[in-house]
Amino acid sequence: MARHFSLSGFPEWLPEQRLVEQHVLTTLQRTFELHGFSGIETRAVEPVSQLLSKGETSKEIYLLSRLQADQATDDAELGLHFDLTVPLARYVVDNAGRLMFPFKRYQIQKVWRGERPQDGRFREFVQADVDVIGQDTLGQHHDMELPLVMGDALSKLPIPRVIVRASNRKVAQGFYEAIGIEDIDGALRSIDKLDKVGEKVVAEMLVEDGATEEQAQLALSLATITGTDSSIADQIYALGAKSELLDTGLNELVALIEGANELIPGSIVADLKIARGLDYYTGTVYESTLVGHEDLGSVCSGGRYDSLATDGKKTYPGVGLSIGVSRLLARVLGEPLVEASRKVPTAVLVAVMDEEHRGASDKIAMNLRERGIPTEVSPSAAKFGKQIRYADRRGIPYVWFPGEPDSVKDIRTGDQVDADSTSWAPPAEDLYPTVRMLS
Amino acid sequence: MARHFSLSGFPEWLPEQRLVEQHVLTTLQRTFELHGFSGIETRAVEPVSQLLSKGETSKEIYLLSRLQADQATDDAELGLHFDLTVPLARYVVDNAGRLMFPFKRYQIQKVWRGERPQDGRFREFVQADVDVIGQDTLGQHHDMELPLVMGDALSKLPIPRVIVRASNRKVAQGFYEAIGIEDIDGALRSIDKLDKVGEKVVAEMLVEDGATEEQAQLALSLATITGTDSSIADQIYALGAKSELLDTGLNELVALIEGANELIPGSIVADLKIARGLDYYTGTVYESTLVGHEDLGSVCSGGRYDSLATDGKKTYPGVGLSIGVSRLLARVLGEPLVEASRKVPTAVLVAVMDEEHRGASDKIAMNLRERGIPTEVSPSAAKFGKQIRYADRRGIPYVWFPGEPDSVKDIRTGDQVDADSTSWAPPAEDLYPTVRMLS
Repeated sequence: MARHFSLSGFPEWLPEQRLVEQHVLTTLQRTFELHGFSGIETRAVEPVSQLLSKGETSKEIYLLSRLQADQATDDAELGLHFDLTVPLARYVVDNAGRLMFPFKRYQIQKVWRGERPQDGRFREFVQADVDVIGQDTLGQHHDMELPLVMGDALSKLPIPRVIVRASNRKVAQGFYEAIGIEDIDGALRSIDKLDKVGEKVVAEMLVEDGATEEQAQLALSLATITGTDSSIADQIYALGAKSELLDTGLNELVALIEGANELIPGSIVADLKIARGLDYYTGTVYESTLVGHEDLGSVCSGGRYDSLATDGKKTYPGVGLSIGVSRLLARVLGEPLVEASRKVPTAVLVAVMDEEHRGASDKIAMNLRERGIPTEVSPSAAKFGKQIRYADRRGIPYVWFPGEPDSVKDIRTGDQVDADSTSWAPPAEDLYPTVRMLS
Repeated sequence: MARHFSLSGFPEWLPEQRLVEQHVLTTLQRTFELHGFSGIETRAVEPVSQLLSKGETSKEIYLLSRLQADQATDDAELGLHFDLTVPLARYVVDNAGRLMFPFKRYQIQKVWRGERPQDGRFREFVQADVDVIGQDTLGQHHDMELPLVMGDALSKLPIPRVIVRASNRKVAQGFYEAIGIEDIDGALRSIDKLDKVGEKVVAEMLVEDGATEEQAQLALSLATITGTDSSIADQIYALGAKSELLDTGLNELVALIEGANELIPGSIVADLKIARGLDYYTGTVYESTLVGHEDLGSVCSGGRYDSLATDGKKTYPGVGLSIGVSRLLARVLGEPLVEASRKVPTAVLVAVMDEEHRGASDKIAMNLRERGIPTEVSPSAAKFGKQIRYADRRGIPYVWFPGEPDSVKDIRTGDQVDADSTSWAPPAEDLYPTVRMLS
């Protein structure tokens, strides 16, 4: 059941849905850190000149202005960032003297795009990015490292299986050049639409852009090749193209695919139709699909860029991937495919006998919290039945009754036992809300 | 050492500083959840009409416009939120049918204010808010609960001691009315400036606004009263004022102070000079000072508002406090008062013999990560001395050498032992970066 958001394109979750989002974000963060990536945040705004510096005209930008702007003191025109890559490039140049390279960073933040509301796209959404940035050089092995980091992170989320796919710009470009296609960018753009519009339409688009029927068919043949080992190279060479750039790209792609699948079998599939449209990638490119939800499109994409940024003296090559967290969440929360085990963090509700004795309940709650047990005190000293209903509606598993001695009731089973607030603890699985996939 | 930010008013941290920020944010989040508060996030934007609905003309608002705006489809004017209270009011009304009341929520997000750059204020900063919202009614005991939650959270942060102070609008208002001051709002505004401008100037401001010298002196006498028990009531009545509103306010304030200090001695101080300027509070008001850094002003403030929001049929009273996280961080990172034990999350760097054997190092890293140990593989197969320096510069405590058998070296002590990547683990204190206060 899709939810209607009160402002179109700006998703907001209920507290119990936010528990799922927090679980997803924490899992991503912990996995990125397990691989040695440092978290950073960049400011939400960049000078508009910076936002437009990569020629990203396809992304709609939100500009800022001050309601009570004072003309005399106003400064550079600012806009909200539409991704986390342009800000990373700027951050790296700003702080180059204070960072250590290769710089491994993750970044989980909201981004904004002023899309037309009727397109049903989000205008505010969370992205989770990992990138490695080198100074002047960056080892090719990072092209294998990054998708494995993302694969590890995605496999730990409460979502269907994700298949990570890779190709290489140099393969496509070398191949097109070798078979005589002149409009390389046009061909990449057309092939990028293959999943959306099908082979027939793509062939027409290629011919419209100047390719012959035969060239178009060869480009489509390349795009149908997939595999997990060096046999992809044989299939590609069998199409008859030969070029140095093609060789370089294939060496990179085969090393990536073979290395990754030797380490973790089935981790990455070569898929030669991946083109990544107009993006600024120069080598490896990645996409990923959620099994059973291919209509969502790629949930995690990225690639290698030989010069993310430059400060005139040095260049900063990088490779990275980005998860569209909000799109993923909207699907798994919308269906829903997942749910939290309760609606609030609370494990124990301490009942209140009457308002005069609220202090005794507060003291019990303090004792429980001191040992890390999430605890609330009942907001009212209503009849116990009503206090138990307060817990039940929120999925709080335990209600504590002050007395001599105190007792604690598991309201799911009805079991009630005497208990001491300085020593009792719930089973570990009841301590925090958990998130599970619905079957 | 204050850092220069590349865009004035928009703070950004280096990776090792971000470790401190993450520690602070995680500590706040865990403590709020320990008290049963649910986390939510609201969108960054609100309709401008909503932002202006509380008459908050003192806050500078950033308006949004789309760079490629299409006049025909453009919608309501939007602005970035300048606090988390106005969005909470809107969220509660939007979702009233799906929330359970009292609604205990925390919210940690960036907010934006289009301040003049030369004021040296932040234009983007993180706030951490906790509020309890009732439907039509909200128990008075929550006025004691909320500052204790914040006090608990603040006491767990790596910062100097924070003193939470409270007063009550009804006390000030009832007192001013009783002694015949007519411009109540003006008097609250003047008293709010006491710490900044001193008694003499405040007295002049009060007289300018129509008070007599005697009334001004009485108002100042009220403002000097502080205490942690019911003796504050005696001191106030000794000034000779009498009114029903004053009685109500004093009952609330004494109940709060006595209850809190009975539960946690020294937790809250009554401080009658707290006025909270022009804010929309209707009862209890809070401020907090960082001991030794009183020049920072209040680091955590809030209060009770009898009608945060209304949807025509129901009203939503609330009480809450907000920490200005970025201001606090800028101080403790700027001095610096705190530091992380290392610059990256990594606990172990796995050395690489040569590029042909990188796969063996990758496998070792996988084994370590599988058991939760943050691990990186050396980006280059340089001489071991250089690989060790890579670890040393980042503060990574262990370097792992593949071999038969493998060995692991604590590069702080030089101790090196044979080790198996499927069973070795570092001491618990080395697993993650820790954050410590500098003495």
